[in-house]
Amino acid sequence: MIEGRDIVSAGPRLRYGLVGGGPGSFIAGVHRAGIDLTRAADITAGCFSRDREKSLAAGSAAGVSEDRIYGSYGEMAEAESARPDGIDFVVVTTPNGTHYEICRAFLDRGINVSCDKPLSLTTDEALDLVRRVRGKDLSFMVTYVYTGYPLVRHARELIRNGGIGDVRVVMAEYAQDWLADRLEDTKTVWRTDPEQAGVSCCVGDIGTHIENMVHFVTGLEIDRISAVLSTFVPGRELDDNALVTVKYRGGAVGHYWPSQVAAGRENGLSFRVYGTEGSIEWHQENPNEMRFARKGHPSVTLTRGGYDLGPSAARWTRMPSGHPEGLFAAWANLYEAYCSTIKNKRQGKAQDEFEIFPTAFDGARGVKFVHDCVASSRADSAWVDGAPPVL
Amino acid sequence: MIEGRDIVSAGPRLRYGLVGGGPGSFIAGVHRAGIDLTRAADITAGCFSRDREKSLAAGSAAGVSEDRIYGSYGEMAEAESARPDGIDFVVVTTPNGTHYEICRAFLDRGINVSCDKPLSLTTDEALDLVRRVRGKDLSFMVTYVYTGYPLVRHARELIRNGGIGDVRVVMAEYAQDWLADRLEDTKTVWRTDPEQAGVSCCVGDIGTHIENMVHFVTGLEIDRISAVLSTFVPGRELDDNALVTVKYRGGAVGHYWPSQVAAGRENGLSFRVYGTEGSIEWHQENPNEMRFARKGHPSVTLTRGGYDLGPSAARWTRMPSGHPEGLFAAWANLYEAYCSTIKNKRQGKAQDEFEIFPTAFDGARGVKFVHDCVASSRADSAWVDGAPPVL
Amino acid sequence: MIEGRDIVSAGPRLRYGLVGGGPGSFIAGVHRAGIDLTRAADITAGCFSRDREKSLAAGSAAGVSEDRIYGSYGEMAEAESARPDGIDFVVVTTPNGTHYEICRAFLDRGINVSCDKPLSLTTDEALDLVRRVRGKDLSFMVTYVYTGYPLVRHARELIRNGGIGDVRVVMAEYAQDWLADRLEDTKTVWRTDPEQAGVSCCVGDIGTHIENMVHFVTGLEIDRISAVLSTFVPGRELDDNALVTVKYRGGAVGHYWPSQVAAGRENGLSFRVYGTEGSIEWHQENPNEMRFARKGHPSVTLTRGGYDLGPSAARWTRMPSGHPEGLFAAWANLYEAYCSTIKNKRQGKAQDEFEIFPTAFDGARGVKFVHDCVASSRADSAWVDGAPPVL
Amino acid sequence: MIEGRDIVSAGPRLRYGLVGGGPGSFIAGVHRAGIDLTRAADITAGCFSRDREKSLAAGSAAGVSEDRIYGSYGEMAEAESARPDGIDFVVVTTPNGTHYEICRAFLDRGINVSCDKPLSLTTDEALDLVRRVRGKDLSFMVTYVYTGYPLVRHARELIRNGGIGDVRVVMAEYAQDWLADRLEDTKTVWRTDPEQAGVSCCVGDIGTHIENMVHFVTGLEIDRISAVLSTFVPGRELDDNALVTVKYRGGAVGHYWPSQVAAGRENGLSFRVYGTEGSIEWHQENPNEMRFARKGHPSVTLTRGGYDLGPSAARWTRMPSGHPEGLFAAWANLYEAYCSTIKNKRQGKAQDEFEIFPTAFDGARGVKFVHDCVASSRADSAWVDGAPPVL
Repeated sequence: MIEGRDIVSAGPRLRYGLVGGGPGSFIAGVHRAGIDLTRAADITAGCFSRDREKSLAAGSAAGVSEDRIYGSYGEMAEAESARPDGIDFVVVTTPNGTHYEICRAFLDRGINVSCDKPLSLTTDEALDLVRRVRGKDLSFMVTYVYTGYPLVRHARELIRNGGIGDVRVVMAEYAQDWLADRLEDTKTVWRTDPEQAGVSCCVGDIGTHIENMVHFVTGLEIDRISAVLSTFVPGRELDDNALVTVKYRGGAVGHYWPSQVAAGRENGLSFRVYGTEGSIEWHQENPNEMRFARKGHPSVTLTRGGYDLGPSAARWTRMPSGHPEGLFAAWANLYEAYCSTIKNKRQGKAQDEFEIFPTAFDGARGVKFVHDCVASSRADSAWVDGAPPVL
Repeated sequence: MIEGRDIVSAGPRLRYGLVGGGPGSFIAGVHRAGIDLTRAADITAGCFSRDREKSLAAGSAAGVSEDRIYGSYGEMAEAESARPDGIDFVVVTTPNGTHYEICRAFLDRGINVSCDKPLSLTTDEALDLVRRVRGKDLSFMVTYVYTGYPLVRHARELIRNGGIGDVRVVMAEYAQDWLADRLEDTKTVWRTDPEQAGVSCCVGDIGTHIENMVHFVTGLEIDRISAVLSTFVPGRELDDNALVTVKYRGGAVGHYWPSQVAAGRENGLSFRVYGTEGSIEWHQENPNEMRFARKGHPSVTLTRGGYDLGPSAARWTRMPSGHPEGLFAAWANLYEAYCSTIKNKRQGKAQDEFEIFPTAFDGARGVKFVHDCVASSRADSAWVDGAPPVL
Repeated sequence: MIEGRDIVSAGPRLRYGLVGGGPGSFIAGVHRAGIDLTRAADITAGCFSRDREKSLAAGSAAGVSEDRIYGSYGEMAEAESARPDGIDFVVVTTPNGTHYEICRAFLDRGINVSCDKPLSLTTDEALDLVRRVRGKDLSFMVTYVYTGYPLVRHARELIRNGGIGDVRVVMAEYAQDWLADRLEDTKTVWRTDPEQAGVSCCVGDIGTHIENMVHFVTGLEIDRISAVLSTFVPGRELDDNALVTVKYRGGAVGHYWPSQVAAGRENGLSFRVYGTEGSIEWHQENPNEMRFARKGHPSVTLTRGGYDLGPSAARWTRMPSGHPEGLFAAWANLYEAYCSTIKNKRQGKAQDEFEIFPTAFDGARGVKFVHDCVASSRADSAWVDGAPPVL
Repeated sequence: MIEGRDIVSAGPRLRYGLVGGGPGSFIAGVHRAGIDLTRAADITAGCFSRDREKSLAAGSAAGVSEDRIYGSYGEMAEAESARPDGIDFVVVTTPNGTHYEICRAFLDRGINVSCDKPLSLTTDEALDLVRRVRGKDLSFMVTYVYTGYPLVRHARELIRNGGIGDVRVVMAEYAQDWLADRLEDTKTVWRTDPEQAGVSCCVGDIGTHIENMVHFVTGLEIDRISAVLSTFVPGRELDDNALVTVKYRGGAVGHYWPSQVAAGRENGLSFRVYGTEGSIEWHQENPNEMRFARKGHPSVTLTRGGYDLGPSAARWTRMPSGHPEGLFAAWANLYEAYCSTIKNKRQGKAQDEFEIFPTAFDGARGVKFVHDCVASSRADSAWVDGAPPVL
């Protein structure tokens, strides 16, 4: 039984800036809510829109002082890095196609970055960012937020401790239906626009969450990938559904299914992992429960905050069991780990073993996965090398 | 389909103070997280403990300036009411037995109050607070937090609009097991101590949530109550389980079951309401779903943020469907409605129809319910008058 | 892990007759299907209707030879008891009001009886049948069929073996909606007719299943009962909903809720039993699963045929786990136990410890429960003595 | 709302014989129970074992007269076809490798056949049986039993009527764990023996159920198949897990996952079908429910016997809603359709539109699917032609 806790950063709050988050943006508000919950940082700067007027309006609403509301990210990176009270990190929530340049601008000015996934349009770009992060010893987070759930962290710990033996089969999916029809006719959908989204819509937007989640939880490395990308909605240029078959190093195999045309589904990310000794099953839409079966025993329902959980789950539990935590808490956990790492690094402390978050390299891994799927699909689903990118 | 939104108060932030929330306190942190999520107010004062040292430590950690960290609530009420930048409202999270005096002190100084449930030890105390609130035209919230969930608000709207016809039967419960054993031997449990908790433990702590929730959702008024309060754990003075039978005005009937000894249960608040035309069912532990059945049709699963929801649910939805919201969001909704009401009142605006929250009178209703249950149980479960208290 | 088995009676088949089961009857066919599944007996006689023509038609369709199709049950009892190849037992599936006389007629001729519930209109009648059964050492089954499910039998065994400690609270219900409207206007509904159904509709028809199930599973004896019977549908003479509060000997308490007006519910019999060491939960509509929680551990999902089940469940499992068994198998289990007992008795063998079925005394217990509920409700829900009937 | 019915064949019972079903056999008993439930036929002959003594023992226990208990299937086919009261059909429940010869023997003697799946070891054998069936105008059933569930039949009807629009994606699986360990060391497991099981264990045993179910429900024809067959348990010769990617004619795609090493899973056959207008989801382990979502509406839970079901479900519903039907009822439905078809044919009546069952050609389709999967897997998962076999 885990006691819920008020998980807030020790020490003074950090300062952060935002790139993105202008009128109509949703995701920026979610990043901010996650940071607010953990009380680890305050928003103090931002470039909320390429339109200076819009940027000013959004920034004022967020309580940012006018002199730190910028009309371009370049200007912001330069100005903030020059201030003694400049931002400690920047949050990037713009469309995929702009990530690389924005992140690079801040990294080059020595500013830590938290960026939406997918990290960039090409693997080379992603690897370039990784090198810059390492070169300057900065902290870079790619917000694969679903890894922030306590039970996901428990799943990782459980599998690493041999709780289900050696993994044999992974079944993972992410089913939505928001692109089941031709939404593009009535509103702007940058995700289906190759210029802004890159080579893939469905795999890039949600398939990459599957890849990240499975790697996070199982530690498995992909060996080979075969994929069938489909575009079901007429007139669309990019994929809206993918069937991916994965062979991992060591013999395990897996099916991934991301879909944006799965009529009747909302945000159905789930994974099921079957090992020699047992299995686990988790669904993002009801994240406070996890099914765990050991061979020869009836399955048990682990509950967030409940019994038989390890220190990893305990570290990230805010509410007692039965008091549901949602996605805001997962965001908070990611940002708490990230901000704590930044603080620890400044104080010369080692990173806490539980304060993990998806890194730039995880981001590069994700971008390569997207390209691997696209390449296989274009080659009539031939196997392609799915190994992690090489720096 | 409801778009998730960044629900934050318009206009400048309010200032609030906290009474309670010292070392080891959990619930104060939850109040604060709810307020943080909505960005409606900042903590600026507090009396965090009767021990001035502990109060100072907790207050500093919360970022409150030292001159506004108080050693007694009386001192705090006096000082804050005298400041031009004094708090706009106070949050009271102390044990039940102290609510009345603390709330009165702030009300009498003209300060709005948000107080944990149950509101007070006696109905007379509660009614006295109601009169003071009304006398000064203040805003008073009793934090029956579960009414903050979007689907609970939808249930209320649905029933009021005749969605299930006339209510016939209500089945509601709140099942926990944290008092299944003699916890009192190893730690301080003020809820089982009559001096601090009042006449009831189980009904006072969680039975009152059932009463509030059912009234909130159905609008039904209780006519008569019959109750069996049990104390299963030896040596305990107050009840740890109750079976309550309710007759409502108009002929509907209901069973309420609060329990703190329901082995294997975590925080199982649920209600099921059966009417002439259909029924609804909701479980707090999975608050993003609601079962809705219309007579002659298969049941549907309404999802938070999903289809077929009305404006009440829409008003309080922060995340898109499939992105689970938890209890923090429910707290935020309560505080958003409360803070907005305070601001509107100052600006002479009428209260928004959706910005409802449990009031002092709801609190008085809850206290009377607790006493009615105790009275019936002491009279061998004879029917007692369960009507709402009379001012 | 339990192997599914082909559960069929050893030795030659018994012969049985049917009273009831004429045109439009449903339940007689279900009895027959249950017997067919177990291959324990063949239908060889019957009085299928009071109308001789209808009786002949139904009997011929069932393959009964014409000389053993009777126009009255009295004639049938007399003739069958006189034949050397007469029936070994009779199945009675007529309306409640006729059970007593029919059962008595067969018992007095030395013929074993299997009768639908409730056993009779009055407790005295039921006790009279018990005495006749015992006087002649016959086998009498009252078909509380839900006790035939393997997981129900496991629940009984588990509780008797202390698996959840001492029972504290029982929550049981049976929710249907087939009488939510005035069905009587368009078809014949004998269950709402006092002449045919007796003093109660809802408690008599399904409340009695709750009482039987809880006693079967827990072994608890009722001490006192308080009930609120309601008639929600205008013009109806008998109850269609009941709220029952039960105090058991030894201090446990319970809520029973039978309803025939629970809009949106189908056949929702369920029980939840909370003890000092754990709890179980079972729902008839998904009978192949049972939730079991031990204090301090996450809950487990026991599956029919799966792991951690005892010999009682094993004895009654026909299909391997994952191959769902339904209500037909529960009927078969009841009849297999009953027929095996008849055969064993003839061979002077003791009854097998697993071959249990609801007896005439269980039937009497059920009839008294119905009357106790009615008596309490008529006395404004005063407590009434709910002890088992005394022979 | 569908009324449950006593579904029994009209007219006199048929006579059937059994090949297989000796000591230790389980599946033969299940066939028999299904036939018993529908009362369409009586067992009157059999070759229960290759060992005449064992055959005699099993036959006697089944009530078959000694002169119709045979020591070989050939002898049985010859003798029964020569009798004026010979069997109307034979049930074949022997290991896969023997199906072809046994079926052929009976077909050639003009006797109808019901045979376990997979139908034969090779597609050629299966097609040969199809030709013989057609040549003699006999009725041949391959017992893909899961198609017998009422809600499965409703799914088929719903999709054919456009209820979910054009199918885009199919996700289907069959997860078990009975071969997760090396069971072969301690008992005889013919399914993992290439001589008896053929080219595949997992795909042949359960993958073929997926293929049959998806075709039955959707009517989709496979165009191309890519498969990864794995053998996870050391020392095993055949596959125990398969990942199959399917492209259907017309552009739909699907993932099939049969596994016998999915630790913690029992008999998890399920399908989810996503179309342009909605989706359905069904799980064999809880067959009385089906999830149905129409685009733009919340999902509904269809219940067997409940609302919004069509005539196909109604035709095969035995129990009212809420009274769970299990696998026995599905078997009964298959045999009821089969026996009724035999009777109708004799009387020159056309086959009833609802009385469908898996045919010899469905069996051939299944055998080809197994071989296609094996061929693709052996070719490093290259696409293979997955079209139905050509007569």
